[in-house]
Amino acid sequence: MNSFGRKFRVSIFGESHGIMVGAVIDGCPPGIALSEVDMLPDLARRKSGAKGTTPRKEADEPRIISGVFNGYTTGAPITVVFENSNTRSGDYKNLTVQPRPGHADWVALKKYNGFNDYRGGGHFSGRITLGLVAAGTVAKKIAGNAVFKSDIVELGGTRNKEEFDSVIESALNQHDSVGGIVECTITGCPAGAGEPFFDSVESVISHAVFSVPAVKGVEFGAGFESARLKGSENNDNIIGTDGATETNNAGGINGGITNGNPIVFRVAVKPTPSISLPQDTVNMESGRREGLIIKGKHDACIALRIPVIIEAVAAIAIADLTLLSK
Amino acid sequence: MNSFGRKFRVSIFGESHGIMVGAVIDGCPPGIALSEVDMLPDLARRKSGAKGTTPRKEADEPRIISGVFNGYTTGAPITVVFENSNTRSGDYKNLTVQPRPGHADWVALKKYNGFNDYRGGGHFSGRITLGLVAAGTVAKKIAGNAVFKSDIVELGGTRNKEEFDSVIESALNQHDSVGGIVECTITGCPAGAGEPFFDSVESVISHAVFSVPAVKGVEFGAGFESARLKGSENNDNIIGTDGATETNNAGGINGGITNGNPIVFRVAVKPTPSISLPQDTVNMESGRREGLIIKGKHDACIALRIPVIIEAVAAIAIADLTLLSK
Amino acid sequence: MNSFGRKFRVSIFGESHGIMVGAVIDGCPPGIALSEVDMLPDLARRKSGAKGTTPRKEADEPRIISGVFNGYTTGAPITVVFENSNTRSGDYKNLTVQPRPGHADWVALKKYNGFNDYRGGGHFSGRITLGLVAAGTVAKKIAGNAVFKSDIVELGGTRNKEEFDSVIESALNQHDSVGGIVECTITGCPAGAGEPFFDSVESVISHAVFSVPAVKGVEFGAGFESARLKGSENNDNIIGTDGATETNNAGGINGGITNGNPIVFRVAVKPTPSISLPQDTVNMESGRREGLIIKGKHDACIALRIPVIIEAVAAIAIADLTLLSK
Amino acid sequence: MNSFGRKFRVSIFGESHGIMVGAVIDGCPPGIALSEVDMLPDLARRKSGAKGTTPRKEADEPRIISGVFNGYTTGAPITVVFENSNTRSGDYKNLTVQPRPGHADWVALKKYNGFNDYRGGGHFSGRITLGLVAAGTVAKKIAGNAVFKSDIVELGGTRNKEEFDSVIESALNQHDSVGGIVECTITGCPAGAGEPFFDSVESVISHAVFSVPAVKGVEFGAGFESARLKGSENNDNIIGTDGATETNNAGGINGGITNGNPIVFRVAVKPTPSISLPQDTVNMESGRREGLIIKGKHDACIALRIPVIIEAVAAIAIADLTLLSK
Repeated sequence: MNSFGRKFRVSIFGESHGIMVGAVIDGCPPGIALSEVDMLPDLARRKSGAKGTTPRKEADEPRIISGVFNGYTTGAPITVVFENSNTRSGDYKNLTVQPRPGHADWVALKKYNGFNDYRGGGHFSGRITLGLVAAGTVAKKIAGNAVFKSDIVELGGTRNKEEFDSVIESALNQHDSVGGIVECTITGCPAGAGEPFFDSVESVISHAVFSVPAVKGVEFGAGFESARLKGSENNDNIIGTDGATETNNAGGINGGITNGNPIVFRVAVKPTPSISLPQDTVNMESGRREGLIIKGKHDACIALRIPVIIEAVAAIAIADLTLLSK
Repeated sequence: MNSFGRKFRVSIFGESHGIMVGAVIDGCPPGIALSEVDMLPDLARRKSGAKGTTPRKEADEPRIISGVFNGYTTGAPITVVFENSNTRSGDYKNLTVQPRPGHADWVALKKYNGFNDYRGGGHFSGRITLGLVAAGTVAKKIAGNAVFKSDIVELGGTRNKEEFDSVIESALNQHDSVGGIVECTITGCPAGAGEPFFDSVESVISHAVFSVPAVKGVEFGAGFESARLKGSENNDNIIGTDGATETNNAGGINGGITNGNPIVFRVAVKPTPSISLPQDTVNMESGRREGLIIKGKHDACIALRIPVIIEAVAAIAIADLTLLSK
Repeated sequence: MNSFGRKFRVSIFGESHGIMVGAVIDGCPPGIALSEVDMLPDLARRKSGAKGTTPRKEADEPRIISGVFNGYTTGAPITVVFENSNTRSGDYKNLTVQPRPGHADWVALKKYNGFNDYRGGGHFSGRITLGLVAAGTVAKKIAGNAVFKSDIVELGGTRNKEEFDSVIESALNQHDSVGGIVECTITGCPAGAGEPFFDSVESVISHAVFSVPAVKGVEFGAGFESARLKGSENNDNIIGTDGATETNNAGGINGGITNGNPIVFRVAVKPTPSISLPQDTVNMESGRREGLIIKGKHDACIALRIPVIIEAVAAIAIADLTLLSK
Repeated sequence: MNSFGRKFRVSIFGESHGIMVGAVIDGCPPGIALSEVDMLPDLARRKSGAKGTTPRKEADEPRIISGVFNGYTTGAPITVVFENSNTRSGDYKNLTVQPRPGHADWVALKKYNGFNDYRGGGHFSGRITLGLVAAGTVAKKIAGNAVFKSDIVELGGTRNKEEFDSVIESALNQHDSVGGIVECTITGCPAGAGEPFFDSVESVISHAVFSVPAVKGVEFGAGFESARLKGSENNDNIIGTDGATETNNAGGINGGITNGNPIVFRVAVKPTPSISLPQDTVNMESGRREGLIIKGKHDACIALRIPVIIEAVAAIAIADLTLLSK
């Protein structure tokens, strides 16, 4: 379903070319200072505008329509909406006949029997993540003293940040796209959040993170590398009665529960499937395989916009765990 | 909490040295042939006995105490219990004073204010996964025609299966442990399961998989490697109106929804933290750092027992998604 | 929280004098014809305008901002909003100093530490039920062949419908208010919905019905009267293999599960607490008891508007149970 | 499903003639003194033995098999089981051919396609309420300072307690049964629990209460009588800044939220459908209507056993609301 959280619950809605997209944020405590202005910095990070991204020419202007009064949260559900103004819907009908490789076109057709709003990806559009980012702003305010920070640590296969620009330049020139890896660090999250099994911190965060389009992998602490370490290398020696450890291969989580050290995880972001290069697909009407050219401008690197969204969903997860562990 | 699923819901309970461990399996349709015997093959796979594992000398005998009548599920909750017979509890008190690196000892102390059952890891024990495997047997029967298969594809850093034995041998000799990577493939899962955002198939499976102790990473399809591919390389060309694709870098999932191709994911399993080598920790009473020797026999490679557990939780997730998408 | 349902999930939001009120309706299958026009008849019933009600001079105009495309539901969340246009907020500050008897003023102050939007009742306002009625329209379309019908069967203590007008007239003249009893009948609901214990049909319907402001009692079938019957009188003889019964004291539900006969329940609606008569309350600033005069026009009988809301929440409950029992 | 609660979650399982019945109690904080002995008083009240009840000759002996260590809750799920020892299963097959009026026999057959365990009512048996009572014992310990008290206030149509004995005597003599009304009062529940709409205190309590077999109505405070009062009569004047009211027609709940006054509700219990008098039903094999004689001893008044079960489910509801409102 389109909601997440047991005590801090976020529901998102909208389609790329519908009237509005947005989120309902339920379970936020009363008395927290909140206005649309608070959401602008994170929304600006999502919008990017950097080389390799193609922001729509829209204001992405959040409007809080419930749950805030006199500048403070009331304790009632907070609803944030974003109008969709810059939508041209003429040229999308094709997607239902020629499903794009790597996109949700085909599964949407199948799951919704052809009734899905296919314009601009409809409810599958990255535009729906506006609601996530808005909810993330609220979540960050209630996630105790936790501080969320995420950044791209690998792009198009290189970990050298000085090469990122040329990787994107090259992808643009080739009419192709590149993926990347985002690392998120959460400091200040108190020990004791999460549960031993089904609601382990890893379970809850990964559930939220895989909600973000284009994410194909998540690892905590040493992650996949820990599978290549010896126990003697991977174990984090405990050096304080407060649970502080010498290393942090556990990524701040033992037995599914936060141990007070920074929570660290990395997220694999696939290259955006929309590319200008000719591709192959099947024609759903004729049943024949045929060539496909996707027109329009595309993000050469969707990963550039992802860090703030990962922060947002991590904050949503931690806010819920924090409120639950009180 | 200790339950998972919206329509097919599994709750697990028990402690390593308590009276029983087990699971309640709610939402199973009536009329499915089921007996304890059906659970034995998967339980045997979990028990292992291979070099590098140290099974307790217990029967691991499942007992169905509700929900089955005349050999068929009744539609009422199915409860399966396992008696804990072979428990010696004398020598665990130390864990609360000297928390073991890489274990849940310290977080348990913190979260439960010292009231947790520390014997043998208590509720954090791998023994609790008996309930998962039992529930997995039921889940596999109701997950439509889906077939689950998982295996170790990397061990102690090598992908060459012929070397696995010597990797373990070497770890045993060094009184150390090794991790590994488990790959799970689900074929026959129909297209259309899952949701675009919060209940994406990746979200639901990863939520379940990170419930398994020692898991530190999950990736679908090309996973982290997809972050290094170009869009033109990563996109799976659609070759049939049934959604069949030429490659399967998506791991059977687009836009959070199954596309009918095999679901493929890999899981990073850390080396078991219990090793015989001397380690460092902090004494919770004195506050001083001191050496630690963990006595007893240990699994040199817990990953050997994990494949069947990963299958089980994947089946639990798919069973829920399957019942929900009806 | 402000959401209800496991597979068909409704979330409501808004405040009486905020910007918008509305609902997000998640889990609606694709392909159902739906437009704002479909919602108008039920919204008109809620608005009333009959003697004894004081509708705000507002259009109550629903606007579907997501989830519908080309006249059909898409399968994505449906969001319906209503603008609040006719709000004067000058004269409500008093409610936080002089909490009105029978209202939520005092509990709101307590629960939300004074941050709640007190204007016009804020999130406690009956206006929030607009979202319920809109969601009810959708629910009725997916609740199979079930037909919902509810009406007032008792008003101000009389069951004689010819006296209803004079009961209201008299209450108006006395500047007082009256309550009533609403009966709801659901025909065409197939047998087999619901669960034996925690999700009994009575549990799920009553949960939804007690969400409606002013409801203080719910009874199914013979209800409280059944407590006065002998078993031989109360038992419904089964007269057909399809489960048809001679009488319907069970109200269509046995063992928590629908038996195919009409579901019948009655709801007690208290008299609206807003009356023009002088009342007593406590001054939250001075701590002194003092007289209170509530100004403005009031509904003399809120029960007149309730039947369609009861239908709506019953439909929401049945829609969820119906989708779950597939 | 067979579970209830968001933060304090109870799952129940078992059949009348199965191996065990019981409950898993998840979300209980650590450090609460708990043993089987604590459960005995409430279990004894449920067992009754008074005239008009026919307790099985069983010990109803609770066994805690997880979640308690050294006499205290550990924070892990608490599982309580009861062995079914005194079961004779020879004579129940008939229920599937001749469904008993007022029982769940017919709906069980329908819902579970004939796979339900029909012996002694199977999962519909009142015996399953053993798990509720055990869970109630735990819930009472964590529901803050709330004190739960419930009693029968009406039996077979009379509110005169001196006549209760003769009412039952008369029912026994007539081989018939009688119903009753149970009132439950909860004092000491702090103000501020519950939510304005879907999780109103009335919603949550009624959800739990209608889980108890034989309950057909619930009313809070003045309940159905409030529908016959004027607003001026029904409103509770507020007499203290702590929310204390002069009267308690609201039953301690305004706007869905506890106001600090005692929570009062009444529950209609139908007469037990098992009576010795000849009845009519339909033969599911022949399709013909025919006479039915139910053999064995029956409770003439099941209401006598209900008060402690109502307390238990109310405590479960309040425990969840209490933990959630922290």
